[in-house]
Amino acid sequence: MNKYLAEFIGTFILVFLGTGTAVVLGGYTGGTETGYLGVTAIALAFGLSIVAAAYAIGHISGCHVNPAVSLAVWISGNLSAKEFGGYVVAQIVGAFAGTAFLAFLVASSTSLEGFGANGYGGLSAVGLNLGGAFAVEVVLTFIFVLAILGVTSSKATSHMGGLVIGLTLTLVHLIGIPLTGTSVNPARSLSPAVFAGGDALAQVWVFIAAPLIGAAIAAMVFKSFFFVKEETGIEVAGDSDGEELIK
Amino acid sequence: MNKYLAEFIGTFILVFLGTGTAVVLGGYTGGTETGYLGVTAIALAFGLSIVAAAYAIGHISGCHVNPAVSLAVWISGNLSAKEFGGYVVAQIVGAFAGTAFLAFLVASSTSLEGFGANGYGGLSAVGLNLGGAFAVEVVLTFIFVLAILGVTSSKATSHMGGLVIGLTLTLVHLIGIPLTGTSVNPARSLSPAVFAGGDALAQVWVFIAAPLIGAAIAAMVFKSFFFVKEETGIEVAGDSDGEELIK
Amino acid sequence: MNKYLAEFIGTFILVFLGTGTAVVLGGYTGGTETGYLGVTAIALAFGLSIVAAAYAIGHISGCHVNPAVSLAVWISGNLSAKEFGGYVVAQIVGAFAGTAFLAFLVASSTSLEGFGANGYGGLSAVGLNLGGAFAVEVVLTFIFVLAILGVTSSKATSHMGGLVIGLTLTLVHLIGIPLTGTSVNPARSLSPAVFAGGDALAQVWVFIAAPLIGAAIAAMVFKSFFFVKEETGIEVAGDSDGEELIK
Amino acid sequence: MNKYLAEFIGTFILVFLGTGTAVVLGGYTGGTETGYLGVTAIALAFGLSIVAAAYAIGHISGCHVNPAVSLAVWISGNLSAKEFGGYVVAQIVGAFAGTAFLAFLVASSTSLEGFGANGYGGLSAVGLNLGGAFAVEVVLTFIFVLAILGVTSSKATSHMGGLVIGLTLTLVHLIGIPLTGTSVNPARSLSPAVFAGGDALAQVWVFIAAPLIGAAIAAMVFKSFFFVKEETGIEVAGDSDGEELIK
Repeated sequence: MNKYLAEFIGTFILVFLGTGTAVVLGGYTGGTETGYLGVTAIALAFGLSIVAAAYAIGHISGCHVNPAVSLAVWISGNLSAKEFGGYVVAQIVGAFAGTAFLAFLVASSTSLEGFGANGYGGLSAVGLNLGGAFAVEVVLTFIFVLAILGVTSSKATSHMGGLVIGLTLTLVHLIGIPLTGTSVNPARSLSPAVFAGGDALAQVWVFIAAPLIGAAIAAMVFKSFFFVKEETGIEVAGDSDGEELIK
Repeated sequence: MNKYLAEFIGTFILVFLGTGTAVVLGGYTGGTETGYLGVTAIALAFGLSIVAAAYAIGHISGCHVNPAVSLAVWISGNLSAKEFGGYVVAQIVGAFAGTAFLAFLVASSTSLEGFGANGYGGLSAVGLNLGGAFAVEVVLTFIFVLAILGVTSSKATSHMGGLVIGLTLTLVHLIGIPLTGTSVNPARSLSPAVFAGGDALAQVWVFIAAPLIGAAIAAMVFKSFFFVKEETGIEVAGDSDGEELIK
Repeated sequence: MNKYLAEFIGTFILVFLGTGTAVVLGGYTGGTETGYLGVTAIALAFGLSIVAAAYAIGHISGCHVNPAVSLAVWISGNLSAKEFGGYVVAQIVGAFAGTAFLAFLVASSTSLEGFGANGYGGLSAVGLNLGGAFAVEVVLTFIFVLAILGVTSSKATSHMGGLVIGLTLTLVHLIGIPLTGTSVNPARSLSPAVFAGGDALAQVWVFIAAPLIGAAIAAMVFKSFFFVKEETGIEVAGDSDGEELIK
Repeated sequence: MNKYLAEFIGTFILVFLGTGTAVVLGGYTGGTETGYLGVTAIALAFGLSIVAAAYAIGHISGCHVNPAVSLAVWISGNLSAKEFGGYVVAQIVGAFAGTAFLAFLVASSTSLEGFGANGYGGLSAVGLNLGGAFAVEVVLTFIFVLAILGVTSSKATSHMGGLVIGLTLTLVHLIGIPLTGTSVNPARSLSPAVFAGGDALAQVWVFIAAPLIGAAIAAMVFKSFFFVKEETGIEVAGDSDGEELIK
């Protein structure tokens, strides 16, 4: 059961610190007019949440903290159907806990408001329409999950997994914040949408469906074309992927 | 005694460079109106102070530079009561030295003022009340200490400890600066409050008590649920936690 | 063929996320007046694209995603002429796919425009002339490729290659964005220029020729002066370059 | 002789990209009024220059690219007097080449000016006086050099040296840019001062003397209190400093 507790805590960290930083910086500036100035800070908050959580609880559960990632790991054959269900439940509960704690802070402050929900159309900072939002979430999740599968598949780089995966999440937020707010994670999107209600809740299906599709495509592409089975033994440890970089 | 000198220097680095960057950037802009633009820079300054100190003196003392971290290590059974006392004294003296040097710079400049004290209510950029401030400091310290215990508990990732811990401190500052200024460290909070006096000093108990509580909870949670004893020998070195990431 | 698919996907990631972040942040601010505020975010987007792609597909193709890098690897004797040709074709096709997807987002939005093309003179934010632009692209590519050849030539550091190379790409963008938009990569420059047309297309030869020249010089300098052949075996693994740092 | 060529190229990279980013971002904004917004970008440019140079040429010369660092290495007993002289000459020539190339870009542009010189009093963004400037340069160089000596003294962390040292240089710039422009490196300060002339040249002695003093103190403190001689053999490799972090 420890792995489900780990996923609960990890998703709490991601949702509270990721969406929370967006809400808090918005409150600091007193509005969204200059909100784009916070893109780097918010993108770092999401990414570094993964760095923190990966090294805190990654050795217990793998630190998926994202149903789309768990789906990709399931497709890759490294998670059972039962575990997948347990992971997703723990992630969703953790995300709601994160948004609930953020709601407590919003109520404790004179200038905070909102919950960091995703959206398109009127809820997108650049007015991205439904088709664009769906497509960009599929593509960003594809990239995110491909990096996860790559870095964790080799012993030579796996100890850097938390760092690389976190920086990749920062990356997809740098472009995605003004587009959709960036989901790439159904659990991260569901709880803010429920707390926010209205259009955010009506649009949340996009941020559940598109990340799952992007992750499934990434898992299948990686399995078909990029998976390299490593032999066991110390020879493999010396055969680092760096050599390939200039071969 | 070298470990106490190391903790003295490390905490000096953290407090001077962390709170100092906040003060200097405030002086640069001539006020706090656009101060939120400095959130990323200040958060990086705190985090990279840990990176610098960890690799400078971590091999001597472990680079706690924080009584809350030393408390968690004591609870984890890796520090004696006597050492805990020595560490905390060295940290507090180092923090006062850091704030004293900052005060010397403030006196040497035409536009610097303040010492980077923490606060709530009127001292919070977003008007966070006492309850919110206490809760957020408990939660942020819990996350910070959980990441410390996780990354340092495995040989496969321990050489990355300084980097991961520093980035996690950056993370909790990104959200915490507008809320309370971010403590998560009683030594970092005490000396600026003494130099600043007034409300900052009256409120400092929050930034001593809450981080200690958050750290103690993290230590107990980690010990109960997430600690995995590694076997000794070279086999363990090859058994990196990366494998778990996709299991 | 998997390596060409890898180069296609990697270059798609770089061009879509790198130039895309520039376009999206421009749309967020509603113009270029305060666009310089986005320099850090855009520089991080380019650099972290390499981090993501290197750990996603680097074990398959080496993640060149740049004809100038492939040229340097070819000169270094680690790529055949036939492979070089295949890599460049895959990179160019991937870059066009990245710009095409960006064009789809631009069409899906009420405020996005442009494709992130490079330029000099009137297209340079600081009015850099042709000579300056050519020289700066030669020098920045020289630095970028020298770091690539250095970090990938030693087993002790090769697992950090993706991170170091990505951060170096961020570095050359921090100075280069206001100068030329930063190319250092013919594939990254060609597709936006074709989509943008006009002056951008007329100037694109600079951003094809200069990076190739800079990369070739770097490859020859590295080969002549800085290449150190490592002996095989476990002794080498212990002989890390860190020792040299203080010798 | 390759090590002197390496120091020449490394210092060229540091001075051109570090001071160059400061000059270019100043030109982008059309003045210094909002220049503080560029602190993070400029601090990253200096730090990532070290990351790039360390992995490009560190295996040849150790990538000191700084007479103060070479002094500390000399005091530590890892450089001969003759080598120290050669390193310093190569560093100064490399720095002048970097500033000369920057001057060429300034002449090639319609909006660039200046060379990134250090200063105090009227040349400090916050009006720091001579005493404050001297003291802060001693302290920042002490911290910078202590981190260098720490990270490079252990095999367990030495492969991360370039990254840690670069991030530490970013750190000291975050606080130092508004104070003195940050030197911590006599070679980095001399060439811009000569190109700029006037007050910058009259004040440059501070930015030569103070870093050398700070580096010498760091070398003596490290040697006396923090140096731990590692035993040779594979046992040492497994005895990573991470264990100390929680002991």
